[in-house]
Amino acid sequence: MRRKSLSGAACPIARTLDIIGDWWTLLIVRDCLRGMRRFSELQKNLGVSKNILTRRLRALVAQEILEQKPAADGSAYQEYHLTEKGRGLFPVLVALGQFGRENLPGRDPNPMTLVDKKNRQPVRKLEIRAADGRVLSPGDTLMTRLH
Amino acid sequence: MRRKSLSGAACPIARTLDIIGDWWTLLIVRDCLRGMRRFSELQKNLGVSKNILTRRLRALVAQEILEQKPAADGSAYQEYHLTEKGRGLFPVLVALGQFGRENLPGRDPNPMTLVDKKNRQPVRKLEIRAADGRVLSPGDTLMTRLH
Repeated sequence: MRRKSLSGAACPIARTLDIIGDWWTLLIVRDCLRGMRRFSELQKNLGVSKNILTRRLRALVAQEILEQKPAADGSAYQEYHLTEKGRGLFPVLVALGQFGRENLPGRDPNPMTLVDKKNRQPVRKLEIRAADGRVLSPGDTLMTRLH
Repeated sequence: MRRKSLSGAACPIARTLDIIGDWWTLLIVRDCLRGMRRFSELQKNLGVSKNILTRRLRALVAQEILEQKPAADGSAYQEYHLTEKGRGLFPVLVALGQFGRENLPGRDPNPMTLVDKKNRQPVRKLEIRAADGRVLSPGDTLMTRLH
């Protein structure tokens, strides 16, 4: 089933969903944010076919979310590095993870948690804040044109 | 192409992606956050077939993201309301929208923006913060078990 393209959509949410394309893409970005760089690592961790992974990586490079670089150790491997644009997906992944942790309990009694490296404390829950710092609920916000 | 189920995944990001299922789902939640409640409104705004919308709404009710209620105006219509769990997807949608606005410019020179109703100022950019308030980049964080 081919999706309708949303790349020209007026809504920036729809445009982002369009480039993400499918869930493998976000799971690849998740693993790259955690420091994975090589095809074989990604394939092993994701349990995805080489064929699908190859296509998704190519799309991510075309979208400038990832870039290919020679391996840091001087071997013949190519590595995949997140670009600055790719690192911009960090809040999307944190938001998805926090929703899952709160609403969709897994089977693991001691689940993996995103922590601050320095203090080993969980990161704060994401909040939507006004320019003056007030925490906003969905009903406190509005989509509008600024001018 | 049937996706592999990620509902039992150890990673809460993967579990969230599993229940979201496809992009229509998040666009339905987006419209419900903006106050849409009726099948006909959603269908018109999303430009999706009745068939697909019916299936997605049924899945969202089954996941307890939406609940059906009689129309507030006493008519025979059923309305779809976000549950508290459903409203928990607000940060996911804000994160997707902010990424799109920064990285995927649309054709509209004066695009729709999420603002605070009170002051009509754009909401702040989402930041990942440590328990003590420091802003964290991906490299400052780590996935780990707490105990």
